[in-house]
Amino acid sequence: MSKAKGSKGERDLMKFFWENGWACVRSAGSGSTSFPSPDLIAGNKIRRVAVECKVTKDDSKYFTKDEIRQLRAFSDYFGTEPWVAVKLSKEPWYFLSLDDLKETDKNFVATLSLCRTNGLLTEEFFS
Amino acid sequence: MSKAKGSKGERDLMKFFWENGWACVRSAGSGSTSFPSPDLIAGNKIRRVAVECKVTKDDSKYFTKDEIRQLRAFSDYFGTEPWVAVKLSKEPWYFLSLDDLKETDKNFVATLSLCRTNGLLTEEFFS
Repeated sequence: MSKAKGSKGERDLMKFFWENGWACVRSAGSGSTSFPSPDLIAGNKIRRVAVECKVTKDDSKYFTKDEIRQLRAFSDYFGTEPWVAVKLSKEPWYFLSLDDLKETDKNFVATLSLCRTNGLLTEEFFS
Repeated sequence: MSKAKGSKGERDLMKFFWENGWACVRSAGSGSTSFPSPDLIAGNKIRRVAVECKVTKDDSKYFTKDEIRQLRAFSDYFGTEPWVAVKLSKEPWYFLSLDDLKETDKNFVATLSLCRTNGLLTEEFFS
């Protein structure tokens, strides 16, 4: 996946948050800072979330253990709920909690069946 | 002020937050998105803040009315305290609440005397 497509995906999700009455920022540091830096941070009067986003043309998407560790660490400090958002080929966005990812020896993975079984569609996430 | 110096200033403040047990992200969108996008968003278990940062070689610094309006709007949605952080020539960083800025016809301004009178040094902000 190109960096541009990833950024476009983040901007699309950012728009969803604002349209649903949340404030949301994209992080500048993601991938280029020594501090944990999730792709999106969003909040409203009630909830606050940190989201790692992935867009792919495949039917599953991997997260490194370090990405998930940093997402957890950031959320522990800030007080956010840690989420991943995944857009697989021809699928809508799914939000998954970290417990819903499948852990392998080296990675965490969001498969199509996991997304469809455990994921929340945006309308479910925001309802 | 160059964009590079502004970014360095933001990274310095980001480091202060992390060193004091807060999580902090720099916003990617600042100045390039239609959504309000403060320079820094930081939080710990107790407090959450949105910060607009300015570095200058002068002895006062202006904020546009739109910058302040957006900082307030973001904070209303997210539930953050809105702050500005100003580093004037040869001075340390000062944190100012929006009520402590002087409003003029066209801008809000942080002068040296306002900073010294009402501003919080980083050690005061984090204590």
